[in-house]
Amino acid sequence: MTTTSGTTRVRLDLAYDGTEFSGWAVQPGRRTVAGVLTAGLARLVGPDGPAELTVAGRTDAGVHATGQVCHADLAAAAWQDLAAAPLPRLAGVLPPDLRVTAATAVAPEFHARFSALSRRYAYRVSDAPSGVDPLRRRDTLAWRRPLDLARLNAAAAGLVGEHDFAAYCRHHPDRTTIRTVVRLDWRRDPDRVLVATVEADAFCQAMVRSLVGAMLVAGDGRQPPEWPAGLLARRERAGEVPVLPPHGLTLVAVRYPADPAGWAARAQVTRRRRLAGSSRT
Amino acid sequence: MTTTSGTTRVRLDLAYDGTEFSGWAVQPGRRTVAGVLTAGLARLVGPDGPAELTVAGRTDAGVHATGQVCHADLAAAAWQDLAAAPLPRLAGVLPPDLRVTAATAVAPEFHARFSALSRRYAYRVSDAPSGVDPLRRRDTLAWRRPLDLARLNAAAAGLVGEHDFAAYCRHHPDRTTIRTVVRLDWRRDPDRVLVATVEADAFCQAMVRSLVGAMLVAGDGRQPPEWPAGLLARRERAGEVPVLPPHGLTLVAVRYPADPAGWAARAQVTRRRRLAGSSRT
Repeated sequence: MTTTSGTTRVRLDLAYDGTEFSGWAVQPGRRTVAGVLTAGLARLVGPDGPAELTVAGRTDAGVHATGQVCHADLAAAAWQDLAAAPLPRLAGVLPPDLRVTAATAVAPEFHARFSALSRRYAYRVSDAPSGVDPLRRRDTLAWRRPLDLARLNAAAAGLVGEHDFAAYCRHHPDRTTIRTVVRLDWRRDPDRVLVATVEADAFCQAMVRSLVGAMLVAGDGRQPPEWPAGLLARRERAGEVPVLPPHGLTLVAVRYPADPAGWAARAQVTRRRRLAGSSRT
Repeated sequence: MTTTSGTTRVRLDLAYDGTEFSGWAVQPGRRTVAGVLTAGLARLVGPDGPAELTVAGRTDAGVHATGQVCHADLAAAAWQDLAAAPLPRLAGVLPPDLRVTAATAVAPEFHARFSALSRRYAYRVSDAPSGVDPLRRRDTLAWRRPLDLARLNAAAAGLVGEHDFAAYCRHHPDRTTIRTVVRLDWRRDPDRVLVATVEADAFCQAMVRSLVGAMLVAGDGRQPPEWPAGLLARRERAGEVPVLPPHGLTLVAVRYPADPAGWAARAQVTRRRRLAGSSRT
């Protein structure tokens, strides 16, 4: 997997508790996931550490992950040294709120962001009158009104498919807000927590938290179940949709094609779309 | 349910994250579960608040609960005022690491401690090379060696039943260390976390953490699966058994007879045993 430039592309699967992170991207003076991970890698592989981490989903401040993916190009010798036991060694240099759950050398065709077919998120909500289980309060939102699972799923059904999600996105003049939601449904777990699963090719910023916010207002009876889908007719952000707090949200999986040819082909599609001015990742 | 003394006995089911509590019992200058709950109740029911909380299982510092039970005798008028919506009102005066999940008026025969038939605990362990999922790090122990589920269950089987658990208890001259473990088994969850479930009529201090510690040393191959049961022949604490940290441990359920006659009968049995000098709760 070593390229002619003497580097090895390494895929890192990540889990983190977003509570104490100011989101993914490196920011001066802020504790960010990319910043802490880069510092940890540098301790293991030295000054030949990766110049850059490329991530599948740039999670906002406070958002968690159990299945985030990034890639880094490491000096081939540094990777060889690490490859025998990368996970315990990474665990040893990273804080307990950030874990590398898999580290794999991959062909250079793999691009964590552009090769991705879809991102899947989960949003956890408790409508128990007692509030949220204390042990899950860092990744579960408390909702004061009782929620109806059938109403939530009726609201969700209208949002699946390719739509212009302008009502659920922050407006950027040169960027499309068209996305394809391939899955959106709710379940009630045995502990009575409601979990929304949302999968799409890509999301604009705070889109999941806006979609879930609209569905909750329908799910507690204050709006009809058709309301969230009806907002898709809007061409700009719908101010009446609550953007939920980040702590209920977790990036649970990123889906990729099975092999290097698929990675390259998908990356080409994504890049072409970006050049056409319709950034979707 | 009002007694002649004008008080109502109320059963409170509790969940807490033990991380920031110095255990159950009130201690001057310490933040304890009983202390915080008593202060919260006093805000709702005023100076006629309960003089005392009686708890099923006095959890140690750092131990969590999802199914703890206590009882309190509240002034009947105060309970009447609270009874319409006790859970949201209690949620409003308690910190997010302590929730009352049920509040029910019960017959005065109910005694949270003496009426209990058994206590059930869970201990969570991750043997993943990457460590513990960041979102569950407050209630899951990281174990550095791979654990074998079949070996863990073989070790567990030898500990079920009525035994003298002196090897797993701190020695107190006048107290029996005979207990009846009615259930002890391990499972591996879909997220690969190993969970021990331990149920007994009662436990001596740190007994669960010692039992699980012995089973882990057998489960990772450093001792044979027969070793934990073999220690039951000892008449004093086995120093070679590791007492695991409290944060992996959660009190998940307390079992009671179905009705007031059963509560009274069970409480009589428990109290008689205590008078006979063989305190078991």
